[in-house]
Amino acid sequence: MKAKWLVITTCFSVSCLFGQVQFRVNPARIEQRILALAEFGKSATGNQRVAFSDADVKGRAYVISLMKEASLSVRIDAAGNIIGRREGKNAALPPIMFGSHIDCVPNGGSYDGNVGVIGALECAQVLHENKVLILHPLEVVVFSDEEGGLIGSRAMIGMLSNEAMNVMSHSGKSVRDGIKFIGGNPDKIKGAARKKGDLKAFLELHIEQGGTLEAEKVDIGVVEGIVGIKWWNVDIEGFSNHAGTTPMDKRQDALVAAARYVLAVNNVMTRMPGRHVGTVGRISAEPGALNVIPGRVNTGLEIRDLSEKTIDRLFGMVLDDVKDIEQETKTRFTFALVEPTSEPAPTDERVRSLIEASAKELRLTSKRMPSGAGHDAQDMTHLAPTGMIFVPSVGGISHSPKEFTKRDDIANGTNVLLRTILRIDEIQ
Amino acid sequence: MKAKWLVITTCFSVSCLFGQVQFRVNPARIEQRILALAEFGKSATGNQRVAFSDADVKGRAYVISLMKEASLSVRIDAAGNIIGRREGKNAALPPIMFGSHIDCVPNGGSYDGNVGVIGALECAQVLHENKVLILHPLEVVVFSDEEGGLIGSRAMIGMLSNEAMNVMSHSGKSVRDGIKFIGGNPDKIKGAARKKGDLKAFLELHIEQGGTLEAEKVDIGVVEGIVGIKWWNVDIEGFSNHAGTTPMDKRQDALVAAARYVLAVNNVMTRMPGRHVGTVGRISAEPGALNVIPGRVNTGLEIRDLSEKTIDRLFGMVLDDVKDIEQETKTRFTFALVEPTSEPAPTDERVRSLIEASAKELRLTSKRMPSGAGHDAQDMTHLAPTGMIFVPSVGGISHSPKEFTKRDDIANGTNVLLRTILRIDEIQ
Repeated sequence: MKAKWLVITTCFSVSCLFGQVQFRVNPARIEQRILALAEFGKSATGNQRVAFSDADVKGRAYVISLMKEASLSVRIDAAGNIIGRREGKNAALPPIMFGSHIDCVPNGGSYDGNVGVIGALECAQVLHENKVLILHPLEVVVFSDEEGGLIGSRAMIGMLSNEAMNVMSHSGKSVRDGIKFIGGNPDKIKGAARKKGDLKAFLELHIEQGGTLEAEKVDIGVVEGIVGIKWWNVDIEGFSNHAGTTPMDKRQDALVAAARYVLAVNNVMTRMPGRHVGTVGRISAEPGALNVIPGRVNTGLEIRDLSEKTIDRLFGMVLDDVKDIEQETKTRFTFALVEPTSEPAPTDERVRSLIEASAKELRLTSKRMPSGAGHDAQDMTHLAPTGMIFVPSVGGISHSPKEFTKRDDIANGTNVLLRTILRIDEIQ
Repeated sequence: MKAKWLVITTCFSVSCLFGQVQFRVNPARIEQRILALAEFGKSATGNQRVAFSDADVKGRAYVISLMKEASLSVRIDAAGNIIGRREGKNAALPPIMFGSHIDCVPNGGSYDGNVGVIGALECAQVLHENKVLILHPLEVVVFSDEEGGLIGSRAMIGMLSNEAMNVMSHSGKSVRDGIKFIGGNPDKIKGAARKKGDLKAFLELHIEQGGTLEAEKVDIGVVEGIVGIKWWNVDIEGFSNHAGTTPMDKRQDALVAAARYVLAVNNVMTRMPGRHVGTVGRISAEPGALNVIPGRVNTGLEIRDLSEKTIDRLFGMVLDDVKDIEQETKTRFTFALVEPTSEPAPTDERVRSLIEASAKELRLTSKRMPSGAGHDAQDMTHLAPTGMIFVPSVGGISHSPKEFTKRDDIANGTNVLLRTILRIDEIQ
């Protein structure tokens, strides 16, 4: 692949034409389409367009109609991914793929996934309306069941297992039945797989789902990669005793130890510089009565970073603190790594540079950053040079009906996506 | 009552006889009876003689047989309490009552309650064998369902409500059906009530259930009262967000706030001198997933002390710390008092002095202390001058098959009980 990626920095061909013509995406149309898509699955507590639901089917039909409006030829692969293709000048070249997903979490919002899909369709629409013919074929993709475990992209990289298809989805159907329900063919799931080299590149536009871009007033996030994730199950053993008869200095209170642990995790993550995050998301105490000193606490740990080494180093720092806590509270901690964890998925350095150059050309500010959340793009890094473009999320809110991204920010991201596609097209 | 309590300090009458004859309780017999009682409900994970179970009925039958061996006349009151009576010289005098309970918690031990019952029976047995006739009638009581909420003693003070009788007990029967099952009459529950003045005094021998006496090598605990208990339900509201995309410094993590709260409670209880205790016994985080920052934590608080003022002061100190935690973690705490809470139930100062004098006479060391646990004695303080005698618990373990009190310590406590009964009998 590398030989094909001699980046041309001089202005010529479509990019030049593009620069001259200055055609841009249509912010009002994007907004109107996002709002229209949000109608499918709308409820008082958020959007319920979970994968494989009736609302999902309706949303997909709407998206297919938009593909047809952009003169894309539509097909649904064995995994239920919708693929809208536009031919290029050279049929021998591999397609540039871009897109995202339209399924959401229960009580979800209107921007996660949708911005990337409507943005991708806008790019296709603009090229169609301006009758721009580029070298490479283009494929707009709408991945199936992203929120259920990157199902569509997992199938596209040939790694969707039978076990994963037996899992129950939020729709109440198994993933297998769900794929069938949206027009895929789970019995021929291997047919959805692409080989390394089949695609020229993959691009995904997405809302940040964090508050960094908004807080720092930056227009575009250039995603360096999707962070790796490790999970641990944590057991803390103290000694359960009568809360009335056991003096304070005679206790082996597992919850007091747990409290020190939660603060130690927070402290380790905060005191080491970097963009890693560490979270204790669940906790329970046994026996769990107000009048009994907890003898046992079950809790957890999640650490995310772009570097697995950093994750392991942070975990080591937590363990160091835990040694002191064990001694001082007379308790014992056990950490068990929970499988499966996600490996860090770095994006392609050359694609990052092209996204940055596109932003600069559009006079937009940009910032390199990790994606703390998982995305279909992380699967696609296995298949093709991959890039991700983030746009600001107001208040950093995501997976919530309160999630919101401004019209201009979405338009900025879509313009960057379009220019990056064209820049990639120029690369021999 | 006070007029009747002119304490005679000179040696005369039975006490004098007692001092001369030096008759004592039989440690081997007490031990053998405790072990025999422990057979009813025995299991691999502890004793299962919960109130109203078949094992409870068998244990009660055994205890009744011991009452008869001591020539007590046995009756079962409307609440299922077993009362074994021994007449005194003066039938017009109110009886001195003493005893405890034989029901246990699920997976319980062999000493909680049983020591007080077998000890009380030993006192009756010794008086019977030595043909000692004292002035007051004596009543040995075995209260029903102590562990389920002091059911028997509550009925004896006329405060067992219909609601309390509708509660399901550990036996799988309602308290109402349970009382019927052991020979009581829930329809005539008021018949179990005694009036203030009906009893000369009430005494209960019990294991400490804490580790203070053992640690300080003290033979006898002179209980100053049963502590008051207040419970709070505590809600902590932060903001739930994506654990991957929300930087550490942008979080409103309710579990981090909860961790600081748990340590603040521990710190307040430890830094203020006194014998109060404070415990956080349960906790849960919402949504409770490893990959989501907890937006809400539900937890609790229990504070116990002999003085309600101290409880309120400690709670105020916790609230002061919580104000800082709220500000620094951007969370909001809500405390809701949980009804019913127990008021402190002080024992009678004159009875405490008699217990101390009895211990001294037997060359036993003693220490005044609160009872951190609830006991039938706390109800009885409403009815009669009440005293409680504690004996050491090895390791302070209670409500566990590991609970253990040494034979000699039980014998010491029983000797103190016997001498205190005789001292009370001397009081005009």
